[in-house]
Formats: sequence, structure tokens, C-alpha cells
Amino acid sequence: MEFRRLTEAEIPGYLQDVPAMQARFSDFDDLDVSEVGDGNLNFVFLVSHRRDPQQTVVVKQAVPYLRVVGQSWPLTRHRMDIETAALRHFRALCPQHLPEVFHADSDMSLVVMERLRDHRILRGALLDGHTFDSVAAHLSTFMAHSLFHGSDLYLTPAAKRDAVKRFTNVELCKITEDLIFTHPYDDSPTNSYNPALPRDAIDRIQRNPLLRAAVGELKYAFMTRAETLLHGDLHVGSVMVSEKETYVIDPEFAFYGPMGFDIGILLANFFLAWYGQGARAPGGADATHTQDWLLRTAAQCWDGFAQQFMQLWQAHEHGGAGFIGRDLDGASAQAYRDAFMRQVFQDSLGFAGCEMVRRVLGLAKVADIADVADPVARASAETGALRLAERLLLQRHQAGSMQDVLTWVRA
Amino acid sequence: MEFRRLTEAEIPGYLQDVPAMQARFSDFDDLDVSEVGDGNLNFVFLVSHRRDPQQTVVVKQAVPYLRVVGQSWPLTRHRMDIETAALRHFRALCPQHLPEVFHADSDMSLVVMERLRDHRILRGALLDGHTFDSVAAHLSTFMAHSLFHGSDLYLTPAAKRDAVKRFTNVELCKITEDLIFTHPYDDSPTNSYNPALPRDAIDRIQRNPLLRAAVGELKYAFMTRAETLLHGDLHVGSVMVSEKETYVIDPEFAFYGPMGFDIGILLANFFLAWYGQGARAPGGADATHTQDWLLRTAAQCWDGFAQQFMQLWQAHEHGGAGFIGRDLDGASAQAYRDAFMRQVFQDSLGFAGCEMVRRVLGLAKVADIADVADPVARASAETGALRLAERLLLQRHQAGSMQDVLTWVRA
Repeated sequence: MEFRRLTEAEIPGYLQDVPAMQARFSDFDDLDVSEVGDGNLNFVFLVSHRRDPQQTVVVKQAVPYLRVVGQSWPLTRHRMDIETAALRHFRALCPQHLPEVFHADSDMSLVVMERLRDHRILRGALLDGHTFDSVAAHLSTFMAHSLFHGSDLYLTPAAKRDAVKRFTNVELCKITEDLIFTHPYDDSPTNSYNPALPRDAIDRIQRNPLLRAAVGELKYAFMTRAETLLHGDLHVGSVMVSEKETYVIDPEFAFYGPMGFDIGILLANFFLAWYGQGARAPGGADATHTQDWLLRTAAQCWDGFAQQFMQLWQAHEHGGAGFIGRDLDGASAQAYRDAFMRQVFQDSLGFAGCEMVRRVLGLAKVADIADVADPVARASAETGALRLAERLLLQRHQAGSMQDVLTWVRA
Repeated sequence: MEFRRLTEAEIPGYLQDVPAMQARFSDFDDLDVSEVGDGNLNFVFLVSHRRDPQQTVVVKQAVPYLRVVGQSWPLTRHRMDIETAALRHFRALCPQHLPEVFHADSDMSLVVMERLRDHRILRGALLDGHTFDSVAAHLSTFMAHSLFHGSDLYLTPAAKRDAVKRFTNVELCKITEDLIFTHPYDDSPTNSYNPALPRDAIDRIQRNPLLRAAVGELKYAFMTRAETLLHGDLHVGSVMVSEKETYVIDPEFAFYGPMGFDIGILLANFFLAWYGQGARAPGGADATHTQDWLLRTAAQCWDGFAQQFMQLWQAHEHGGAGFIGRDLDGASAQAYRDAFMRQVFQDSLGFAGCEMVRRVLGLAKVADIADVADPVARASAETGALRLAERLLLQRHQAGSMQDVLTWVRA
């Protein structure tokens, strides 16, 4: 089928011809379709049967340009193949945390998948004052399984090579390279600054050679270190939650990169929300409750990830030669694992710093801070976030644990 | 053409049918062909006209197994495509340091190239007491150009992706992973130890958790960090020299890996030769002359590489935004370059340590030490080499310059 962008009106007819949809819809005559894509890249349609809303799916279609900009910014439709492959790959590892893919159409750059009816985007839920006790356990499980099973610690070299090729994602990586690692630091015209943010706070980021060198190292790591299959955009807008369940969505930025990138993006978004909460209702009981939850959850995400990743690794190597070869003294395998986790931790902190800077100075903001109405209150959150980012970038090698980092946040 | 292994007698007939050979040979009736491959992988034929020895080429053919082991160790013939592509790529960058490729035949896994008649393998020349004033300048030029131009500092992301794919070399990388990074450390049956080498010297390598962890980090870096197109086996047996010229050959291990790997392998081979020279004629004037040259050359290789690499980088970014973006304070681009070079230096020292260990404990030795007839004298060289390797692996982050490292060698 030749690619064409589907309208709401065309969706029922399209679905009717998809064999897998026969099992999901009793008929296609009375479907409600609404386009709800609020992202920058794609069109997203919620489809449900008017008489039986349990009959429902999501249709997501990529167009050959960046939606938020228009046809003047061409972007490969192939990204939908990568997103679909990543959804299936991650779901095979963690079925409880990924939506099911019912149908994928490469020609049409389209995927039909499970609709998470009882779930909402985590960022919005947090802004509304909700917190979720299981999110840390769920997201750390997702990260441990996804980051371990894509890596050389688990795959054979040939399987790893094939995976790296399948998930080569140059165009979307370029967006990250520009928008996360470059533009926020070089005063790019794509940046936007809160007028109330003091120039000095911006200069501390953009005109500090040591900080710029640290960001350069992390950009280079992002571009060269093909460690594992990343989600690639694991912020709290890519997470859907209910009271008991947590789902990860939108892995169109998936590619082989450094483990710390996914972890760092996630941690940064909890920290950004912490500063945003502080600026909304400083000292209020609700804000304090959410802020406490945010820091606790950030710490549990790392700690839970580290613990489960280590368990998966030890179990995989149990009884045989491990990554370093046979462990002759009984302490070497663990010494390497400890060194490995230290490196991932420090990388995560560095990438968290990059994410925090770009959400304050760069093109794409986060509602947690950007929606704070008073520019002065917003600038106070932004200044705090930039100070933490500075510390994450420059002192990441000195942090021994998440408790150290939480001290930095509260400072 | 279907693959078949050529014999000496078949070479003239094969060459006669190659158009490019018409310009190199007046006729094909009186060619002298001798198979001289002393490597572990391939067959190498020297071909020259008996009446006019200036008419001469080298034919190199890969067979679908590891030559040194036989058909029981299958190995992709595709490696010759990679070797040929690497030879051409490196020659385009440094025509003065790579032999010319006259003809490549993918079906036959064969390459016909320039014969370096007046040159000999550097390792053998050093063992015969020769030294060469230009080798450091030449090899540092080769490394600076090859390592820079394959990297993200020079290539666009799309060009880099294509290069990574073209030079994916899983099978030969696996040999390195096993023989350099794993077997020497886990007392593998493929190892061989000088009976006069004290068990304690071996245990200091194989049963030191911190050292094993350091080697694990370097193995992981080798497997995951796709920084640039490496030669992949840049020891002094892959270098041919005359009084005035230096050529790099045999890049069949070429792949996208960490820059420090090529540099470290080369440095290690100078250090190994230094210990070998010391064991052959300790204190003798000739040995001392060669030893001084070895350390001077090692230092000049790094220093020359670092200087030229930096020049290439600065020239490439002159007048525009560099890798980190625009340099707003005039000091950030250089701060990043300095941090980058420190990382490459420390990586190089670590990889040098790995190469030294594997040449003493592993399967593939170096003649510099292995040919020392007296086992006790040999063990003394080996012990020294292992001690230096230990330091390179454990203290690489503390070395500020090559002068520090030379102090370690002499210690």
C-alpha cells in the first residue's frame, strides 16, 4: 500500500481491512475516532466503539516530516518501524509494562495497539497532585530488563550486531544530539529563556568551559557507546500509570546507546518536577507530599534498577564463565560488576544534568516548570534546576549513592 | 567466480586474467611465486618477474578457516572485503603509509597489492638491532589521520553510520575479545606460560579483582565504543619499514572501536621489545641503544599523535561551530578537546596493559620475548612486562604524560 496520511474519517475503513481487528471490534460502523496526538512527531487516534467502549484501540501514524514544524522539516517515516520493533522487543521482556501491538503497517508507517483506558500520562497526573506507590518498582524493573537484555552482558556478539543494525536511528538521534547536547549550551536561536531568569544563571551553564567539556563527553558517549537498546526518550511523558499499573510508551527514539541515558532522563524528570512543585505552592502540604514522593521515587528507581540488573547479570552468569572469563579468586566477577554499576550511575547523573539544562534553556520545556504562571517563581525553579544540573555534570564522579544526590537536590 | 584456494602454480594464470595486471607485468610466462604467509589467518604470495624483479606484486588470499588451526576453526572469508576496504580507506588518508591496492576479488577473497620490496617488518628489523628515526613521525601521522577522519568529530552521523555498518567485523573482533581480553586472565587452556615464570607473577594478573575489573572495563569499551575506524591489530608486525618510509599493513581486524586500542597496542609492542632487549643482552651497548630508541619512539608516537590529531580537529572546526556547538567563551572547545585527549591517553595505557599481558600469558607471543632462549632471562623480561601491565591497568588514570609512563617502564 502506498503511504498516505489517514484522516479521522478514514480510520474505520482502514481498520476494517486489518484481519487482527476482527477480533477487537464487533463491527466498524459506529466507531468514534479522535486525533489526540499532542507530541511533536506523529498523529495519534483513539478509536472506540460507540456502543461498547471496551472495544478500543490506539492508531499511531508517522508522517514524513516533523509534525510540530511541518513539511519543511523532513523526517524519515522509518521511525515507525523502529518504534514498533522496540515496542515488541520491550514487551517480550516486560509484558506487564508495554502496550500490546495488534498490527503494524510499514508502508503506511502506522501501528495499531492496545489502548490503555484506565491509565494517564504520569507527568499530568503528578501535576494534578497524584502519586503512585508502584511506579518506582515498575520503572526500575523495566529499565533493568530492557537495559540488561540488549547488552553485551547478555547477547552474543552476532545477535548484538544484528540488533544494533536493526535499531540504527540516525535521524532521531540527531534530534537528541542537537536539542539535548548542543543547542541549550551554545545560545541557539531554537532556545527560549524565561525573561525573569537571570542572565548569570544562563551564563553559568553556557560559559563554563569545564561544564561544556563535561557535556561534550556525554554527547560523545551518546553518539559512540552502543551499549544496549535504549528507549531513548524515557521521561515522565512517556509513562502511563494507573493505581496499580505502569506502562512505557513511545519508544520511537530507540537506538543502541549508553545505559545511563534512559536512567538519567527519567531521574532528571523527577528532579524537574520537584523544582516545579516547589515553585507552584512552596511549603504547602500537597507540594511537600509530592516532592517527598518524587525524591523517594527517583532514589528507588536507581536502587531498584541497580539491584535487579545485578540479579539478572548474576543469574545469567551463574555456574559458568562470565563476561570477564572465569573468576579464579571468587571476587573478580563482582569487582567488575561493581565497577560497571558505578560507571552507569555516574553516566546517569551526567545525562540527568543534560536533560535538566535542556528542559530549562532549550526548545522543549516540561509543563512542570513551564506552566508555572509567575515568571519570577518559574525562574526560581529554573535556577534551582540549573544549579543541580551543574553539580550533576561537574561532580557526578564524586556521588557515591542516590542519597548524595538527594542532598544536592535539597541544598 | 566461485571461491577456491589458489596454489602457487595457479597464481600466474589468475593474474593474467586481471586487467590491472597488464600494466604491471610485461608477460605472465616467467613469474616467480612463493607463498610466505607466516600469519595465522591467510595465504600470502610474493609474485615477481624472473627477468625483471621490478615487476612484482603481493597476492593475499583469505580462506574460510583460521589457517593456523585448520578447517575445524571456520572464519568468514568476508574478512578480506574488510581488509581491502580498510586498506583503500587508510590509503586515501595517508597514501605515503599504505600499500596500493591494484585489484580486489570478493568472490575469491583475494587482494593484489603493491609489494614493498625495500621494506621489512619492523619487529624483525628491531630484533636485528636496527632502529628507524622516522617511524614515530610516520606512525603518529597515520594514527592521527585514521583515527580522526573515521570519528564523529569529522564525519556526519549518516556517514558514520554507513562506515560502522561497512566495517562490522564480528568474527575477528571475537578473536580479540577472547585472545586479548579474556583467555589470558582466566587461565585458559589456550594460554602458554614459560615454566620459569613464577606462578606468583601469573596470579598477580589472574587473581587480582581490581585488575580483572579494569580489564573488564576495557573489554566492554572494545565491544561497545564505536568511536572510529581502527586498524585493529597495530603491532610492530603490522608495520613495514625502510630507512625513509613506513607502511602499515594487514588491517583485517579493522572495525569501529575505541581510539585508544590502536594506540595502546602499538605502545605495548615498543614496551615488550624493551623488555626483550633487556633480557637478550642486558647492559650491552646495542641493547641500550635500541632500548632508548624504543622508549623515545613510544613517547613520540603518542605525543606526535596527540599534536596532529588536535591540529586536524582545530582545523576542521576553524571558523564554525565545533562538536560541542558554538564556543561562547573562547575556552570551552579547547577544554573539551583537552578532556577528550586525556581520555584517549588513559584508554591507550589500559589497552597497552592488556596487550602486554596477552603477549606474555596468552596464545600469541611476540618474538621479542618468546625467542629469548634462556627461560630464566625470558621470565625476567616477562615479569617486568607484567609489572608494567599491572601499573598501566590500575594506574592509567594517574598518568599525566608519556614521561610518567617511561618512568614506570624504567622502574
